[in-house]
Amino acid sequence: MPHRLLILSANAHQYQEIIERAKLPDIEIQACTSLVQAALISTNVEIVFGEPGLIRSLLPDLPNLAWVQATWAGVEPLLAAGLRHNYLLTNIRGVFGPLMSEYVFGYILFHERRILQRLASQKKQIWDNTPPRTLHNKTIGLLGVGSIGAHLAQTARHFGMKVRGFTRSSEDCEYVDKYYHPPKIIGFADGLDYLVAVLPNTPQTVKIVNHDVLAALDPSALFINVGRGSLVDEIALQRHLQANQIRAAILDVFQNEPLAEGHPFWGMPNVYITSHTAALSDPGETAEIFIKNYNRFIQNEPLENLVLFERGY
Amino acid sequence: MPHRLLILSANAHQYQEIIERAKLPDIEIQACTSLVQAALISTNVEIVFGEPGLIRSLLPDLPNLAWVQATWAGVEPLLAAGLRHNYLLTNIRGVFGPLMSEYVFGYILFHERRILQRLASQKKQIWDNTPPRTLHNKTIGLLGVGSIGAHLAQTARHFGMKVRGFTRSSEDCEYVDKYYHPPKIIGFADGLDYLVAVLPNTPQTVKIVNHDVLAALDPSALFINVGRGSLVDEIALQRHLQANQIRAAILDVFQNEPLAEGHPFWGMPNVYITSHTAALSDPGETAEIFIKNYNRFIQNEPLENLVLFERGY
Repeated sequence: MPHRLLILSANAHQYQEIIERAKLPDIEIQACTSLVQAALISTNVEIVFGEPGLIRSLLPDLPNLAWVQATWAGVEPLLAAGLRHNYLLTNIRGVFGPLMSEYVFGYILFHERRILQRLASQKKQIWDNTPPRTLHNKTIGLLGVGSIGAHLAQTARHFGMKVRGFTRSSEDCEYVDKYYHPPKIIGFADGLDYLVAVLPNTPQTVKIVNHDVLAALDPSALFINVGRGSLVDEIALQRHLQANQIRAAILDVFQNEPLAEGHPFWGMPNVYITSHTAALSDPGETAEIFIKNYNRFIQNEPLENLVLFERGY
Repeated sequence: MPHRLLILSANAHQYQEIIERAKLPDIEIQACTSLVQAALISTNVEIVFGEPGLIRSLLPDLPNLAWVQATWAGVEPLLAAGLRHNYLLTNIRGVFGPLMSEYVFGYILFHERRILQRLASQKKQIWDNTPPRTLHNKTIGLLGVGSIGAHLAQTARHFGMKVRGFTRSSEDCEYVDKYYHPPKIIGFADGLDYLVAVLPNTPQTVKIVNHDVLAALDPSALFINVGRGSLVDEIALQRHLQANQIRAAILDVFQNEPLAEGHPFWGMPNVYITSHTAALSDPGETAEIFIKNYNRFIQNEPLENLVLFERGY
């Protein structure tokens, strides 16, 4: 009897292609991009690979379910009390930190190496040997030090930077030089060269990046938001940028997405809008995680990235 | 008696300012940007901080010379037989690798994160969520693995890349996954996502990046030259770029510098000219090395980055 796999995701067909290429043994694959499709074929499904929000609705109809591999880190939809929890649940971990590092340091280096200015010089055939700035000895402040913040801290340390971390209370990342906790956010922000917001959206984090925090940064500072749009007082940020009180803002997330037509951010020369692309998980990488776990599953080995329902992660 | 320091460098006044700010004990500082100035005040100088090429001419006039701190890595001008070698010589080391990493990965990320394309979308108020490419699992080839190549390898490994190294024979960098040696340069180049030239100029390296090497790269490859202009067959490179047989070239060095007005590279949309700025040593960092060593010098401690004349480094 082959293992019946249901792929339930907007990217289902892309995942299917990658998984079929891997020629896994004893597998029968069905790919659905919607719940309606999935409802028709869910009987006898033993394994589901897909988006937690979609899978949740299907749980009552999967009598043979043994294992769910989520395509995301966030499995909250599957944790709620009252849902069945009698299957193995694995998620995606450790891939968002590296992607966020590529994003954050890509934009920092883009500014410090003067890439745009050098391109402008090149157009005029000017041999522009204006020195770049280096990351070495600059100070980066991480507003939030979870697994993503920890990876950013490690990358910053690799580039010889000093790293400050702002957390509620935890101090467990070895790459953070100095920790700050509420209410000491101004001390944390004071003189930073780079401020990177990575916090989740909670009542405590709403508009945490406000006028006072922005005013504490170095005037040449870059502000980078890869957390949530709700973290930022957008009006205060707009004023600081328009008055050149900080150098630039690189914004991946906004209070309202997509950013509305006509929003002042679109036209500001010191705003970089990246349209929520900072850490899109790569379908190839996500499928690889499934493939690796499938091979463990059929050999009765423990699965990687197992989520414990009672712990929530 | 204070220690008499002569700063002899085009950046002498900048160095002087930084060193004076450090309020070093027992020091008397004179800063000269030229040999003519220096000749007038060299008597009794005990310490020289400056450019080896300038210092060389002054050596016979420095009877009290005890220590030279070079502002560069290359101290060849001071090594020649026949020159006096009865003083401590220290140089700058280990700072070029990090700067080169900032340059190389700045330009790689600039391309993979589609920074220019996203800026163009922003001008049109388009919410452009085209996925970026990731560095993870890409393959970088380092043409030359000295101290700079080793730092690039370490940075590449940090970003989850596979690293190939091409060297005459050495295989001593732990961050290189696979080594290649002459004549196996095509095997080395085969399918690379990024080719970075870091070799010095020797008879064996002239035009080592030729038609065949470029043809072996992945069509989406970036070629980055931070070594010497002589490493590249510029005509072959131009043809490959014009035919889009590789994605782009990021060129810091050229056969003739500054690059001549009217050279086709200036106007090519897939060429990035950075005018020999990839690893300019930072005056602040260089002065810090002097300051640290001065404190060791006056406390009779061994100096850092000591060059052994008989060994040459």
